[in-house]
Amino acid sequence: MSEGRIQEVLESLKAIKGVHGAAIIEKFGLIKGSALPGWVDPEAVAAMVTLILKASQRATKELEQGQFYNAIIESAKGRILFSEVKGSILTIIATTDAKLGIINLKLGAAVDVLREHL
Amino acid sequence: MSEGRIQEVLESLKAIKGVHGAAIIEKFGLIKGSALPGWVDPEAVAAMVTLILKASQRATKELEQGQFYNAIIESAKGRILFSEVKGSILTIIATTDAKLGIINLKLGAAVDVLREHL
Repeated sequence: MSEGRIQEVLESLKAIKGVHGAAIIEKFGLIKGSALPGWVDPEAVAAMVTLILKASQRATKELEQGQFYNAIIESAKGRILFSEVKGSILTIIATTDAKLGIINLKLGAAVDVLREHL
Repeated sequence: MSEGRIQEVLESLKAIKGVHGAAIIEKFGLIKGSALPGWVDPEAVAAMVTLILKASQRATKELEQGQFYNAIIESAKGRILFSEVKGSILTIIATTDAKLGIINLKLGAAVDVLREHL
């Protein structure tokens, strides 16, 4: 994997209006890269990814949902997006003001680049 | 709470095209009501709700996201929607063919009724 290119992609996501930051987390919680603000602990993001994947694994096994693609958690003050890329999870932390349309557009482009470099 | 009315709401969600079923789960995993197909174990749905809420609690505590509103998990063969209603979580299990616009519309109406009856 090319770490410089991955970091570039994460920084470009962080630059979107209303996005606090982004990180890419390996299936078992290993942080492969992150562009997060100082007040966000990458380990907390990794822990959330693990919980989301556990939930999705139950869905796959017991509700016949198949492989995990993505997830969104919406809360009073923000949104967190999780997208599968080659077995890793790209996580984006955004405010409620962030435009989901714009994020999804840039997310698609980011995933394409990450797919080549992970 | 009026169980008959809650059951009616869950059945009406289950009747939407592409929706397998719905359940309402209390914060600590207690199943308050369910309209699920025979092959879905309500306990598995409750376990997923617990995991999603744990993830969202980390988000609230460490990423300053505030109170949980809703979540979606999208997988290869389906979508699972989770919405907060008075401290309980309304869960809808749908196929990938299900129209999210229609579900969200009926979900809004269902939440309004559940708010009165939970």
